[in-house]
Amino acid sequence: MAQKPSIPKGTRDFSPSEVNKRNYIFDVVKKHFQTYGFQPIETPSFENSETLMGKYGDEGDRLIFKILNSGDFLNKVNDALYATKDSSAITSKISEKALRYDLTVPFARYVVMHQNEIDFPFKRYQIQPVWRADRPQKGRFREFFQCDADVVGSDSLLQEVELVQLYDAVFTDLKLEGVTIKLNNRKILAGIAEVIGERDKLIDFTVALDKLDKIGIDGVSKEMREKGISDAAIEKAAPLFALSGSNLEQLSVLSELLRDSEEGSKGVGELRFIIETLEELGLQSANLRIDVTLARGLNYYTGAIFEVAAPEGVSMGSIGGGGRYDDLTGIFGLKDVSGVGISFGLDRIYLVLEELGLFPETIDQSLQVLCVNFGEKEALTSLKLVHQLRRAGIKCDLYPSSAKMQKQMKYANNRNVPFVVLIGEQELGSNSFVVKDMVKGGQQTYSLDTPELFYQGL
Amino acid sequence: MAQKPSIPKGTRDFSPSEVNKRNYIFDVVKKHFQTYGFQPIETPSFENSETLMGKYGDEGDRLIFKILNSGDFLNKVNDALYATKDSSAITSKISEKALRYDLTVPFARYVVMHQNEIDFPFKRYQIQPVWRADRPQKGRFREFFQCDADVVGSDSLLQEVELVQLYDAVFTDLKLEGVTIKLNNRKILAGIAEVIGERDKLIDFTVALDKLDKIGIDGVSKEMREKGISDAAIEKAAPLFALSGSNLEQLSVLSELLRDSEEGSKGVGELRFIIETLEELGLQSANLRIDVTLARGLNYYTGAIFEVAAPEGVSMGSIGGGGRYDDLTGIFGLKDVSGVGISFGLDRIYLVLEELGLFPETIDQSLQVLCVNFGEKEALTSLKLVHQLRRAGIKCDLYPSSAKMQKQMKYANNRNVPFVVLIGEQELGSNSFVVKDMVKGGQQTYSLDTPELFYQGL
Repeated sequence: MAQKPSIPKGTRDFSPSEVNKRNYIFDVVKKHFQTYGFQPIETPSFENSETLMGKYGDEGDRLIFKILNSGDFLNKVNDALYATKDSSAITSKISEKALRYDLTVPFARYVVMHQNEIDFPFKRYQIQPVWRADRPQKGRFREFFQCDADVVGSDSLLQEVELVQLYDAVFTDLKLEGVTIKLNNRKILAGIAEVIGERDKLIDFTVALDKLDKIGIDGVSKEMREKGISDAAIEKAAPLFALSGSNLEQLSVLSELLRDSEEGSKGVGELRFIIETLEELGLQSANLRIDVTLARGLNYYTGAIFEVAAPEGVSMGSIGGGGRYDDLTGIFGLKDVSGVGISFGLDRIYLVLEELGLFPETIDQSLQVLCVNFGEKEALTSLKLVHQLRRAGIKCDLYPSSAKMQKQMKYANNRNVPFVVLIGEQELGSNSFVVKDMVKGGQQTYSLDTPELFYQGL
Repeated sequence: MAQKPSIPKGTRDFSPSEVNKRNYIFDVVKKHFQTYGFQPIETPSFENSETLMGKYGDEGDRLIFKILNSGDFLNKVNDALYATKDSSAITSKISEKALRYDLTVPFARYVVMHQNEIDFPFKRYQIQPVWRADRPQKGRFREFFQCDADVVGSDSLLQEVELVQLYDAVFTDLKLEGVTIKLNNRKILAGIAEVIGERDKLIDFTVALDKLDKIGIDGVSKEMREKGISDAAIEKAAPLFALSGSNLEQLSVLSELLRDSEEGSKGVGELRFIIETLEELGLQSANLRIDVTLARGLNYYTGAIFEVAAPEGVSMGSIGGGGRYDDLTGIFGLKDVSGVGISFGLDRIYLVLEELGLFPETIDQSLQVLCVNFGEKEALTSLKLVHQLRRAGIKCDLYPSSAKMQKQMKYANNRNVPFVVLIGEQELGSNSFVVKDMVKGGQQTYSLDTPELFYQGL
């Protein structure tokens, strides 16, 4: 009995329409990556396990998909270990490879392995799938694409400036106007923790602060107190709760608050440079906003932190993010490689474009012209015309069999074809073809000697 | 101590230049897939094991990469089975998913699962990586891309005609002129075996016949005899050894040889239709040649068989192949879906284009313009120009720091940049910029008010 097929949970088939829409986003992103001087690399889907393990914390390690060794893999497990039946201990003996969990660690490995071929500063982009054994849920998949651009080997703040411009260029081109690019700096967060005297509660502090919009000043203060942050500290931090106004106004509040922290002041200076330069250069459609509650990747980032929010009114988590890190490649033995990068959240951007109806109308037009098939002799003449149209770059097809007209027209409708070409016996006799306009209605006759009169208008 | 990183054997990192070249091939192929009316789908990288296992023979099953279950996977193995330490028997208990081995089985699964959304005939293309635990060797990898186009739900021979045209269109567009598209038909092979009275030795017969070029008539006869094919049969098959001349001449020899075999005659008729129609339509640069020794995928194909050979003088195995199959989806419970498909061998096409120097010259030009960085103030003005160029679609960059001129020029050279822009103090004063032509030498000054006078020529 035949199997009833299914796919693993957390994975997806993509239909033609979905692939076309995804590629539309990728193509726009790639175009701008390239005009910004980024170059593509690709790394293998699986890495040696030791490349990945231990890089994402214990929880990350658990979520990495491991690949079973080939052949008699149990043979390599000694009997004493085998007797324990300890899955965790036995894993490393029966699995030496694992699917990549993100693009960052493979990129770090790439930079170290290829350091002698690379011209630094190295601006690379990478758009490939990653895999995580996460519990699947709405919007969270076990296989999904990441889309990253990073510059390594330059500590110039101009990189941060450019990355904001790049976000602006991509979202403007996608017609997704009005996104908000939120900016913060790890040094500002550290400075705040220092100034209020709670250096080691930095994470608790920012997690609580991040909820300001949702639970208000009282809620945030309460949570901070529960986490053991002193009343004195919370009072000192009060200016942060009221941070508002323009970016430049916020910068002066921060500058004042952090004037006794060297690190904090440095962070304010960096933020100021990025913001002032961008005000000078201008953005096309994105908003730029300081957000000191932005603490993503806090263990990782050392300078600027970015996050992109969808335009107001669209309820969606962040559609992009990134930041500066000081030591990407140290884990693989190459010290002092500073970098800064951003990523685009493909799946969420897709949902936002879908919700706002921003995909181009022609995206589902996988066929521009369909020729009806009236039989062998007519089909041969049709094929000649089809061939001419294809050579002119028109997406065109001949219905493969001389099925009933009704069936062929139904197929044309289902495939959303704007023009149907008819070459029947009569047209064969008069060396002509008829074009039915499926959108506006009506039809027109052309000579087979001058098909360009038809297709040049497409 | 830091790890010295490496990648799993049989896998590859792709550098920017390699990714650009690979994408160049993919883009050409995709363009023609689309003008021929094919639509893209994508399927997950891993499938449920039962979807893949048993579809590729025992050897195939062994080469499928299995993914280890998450969590305490050994817990699901009962003690009696565990005690056997039998890797093969335990595999299915600790692994439920596997990386796809090709694109055909996932496509069959897709068609069955999505049959109610698909408008048949369904022309799909799919370009995705596959994985095989093969022993790596020169030109054989454990991760590689397949690139397939198939039509299912139509038994019209016009599909075969179109697929040959599609090969011709792609290779012509890649400037790879003079490829040979070899054509055969499974029914002809079956007819031959029938006529010479060796029906069940069909595979031995064709394997031997396939060596005609290399070992000559005597060698082939010897091998056939060793495989137990009778002298009488070999004598009857003699016309095949001498098959030469034009396709139409070969067709008459075959037609005569196979006149007593119904199946064989049907095969000759199909081949004749395809060849005559293509002679009528014409090919741009490919040669079309009957090759009755072509027996690829013999267990699988039921009608036409295709294979593409690189132009003469290039020593390379086939760079593409395909054929018609009668029952793609039967294994998943959907009967009577006939299909025909072709594939492109990306890695080999890449090597051929490289060998013949056919990649476009501009492919390694990842940056068209580099602005030298003379310091903060100059950089700001440079950034404005860079931004204008980027908005015009020019791949452009500002060197991120005001490093020594020599270092910046070396970077420009290494990245193969054709134009370097200089905005120093003097240019700032005169509101101008200097463009150095790195290819032809010489330089020219433009006003910052009319940068289009420079970039419109790019």
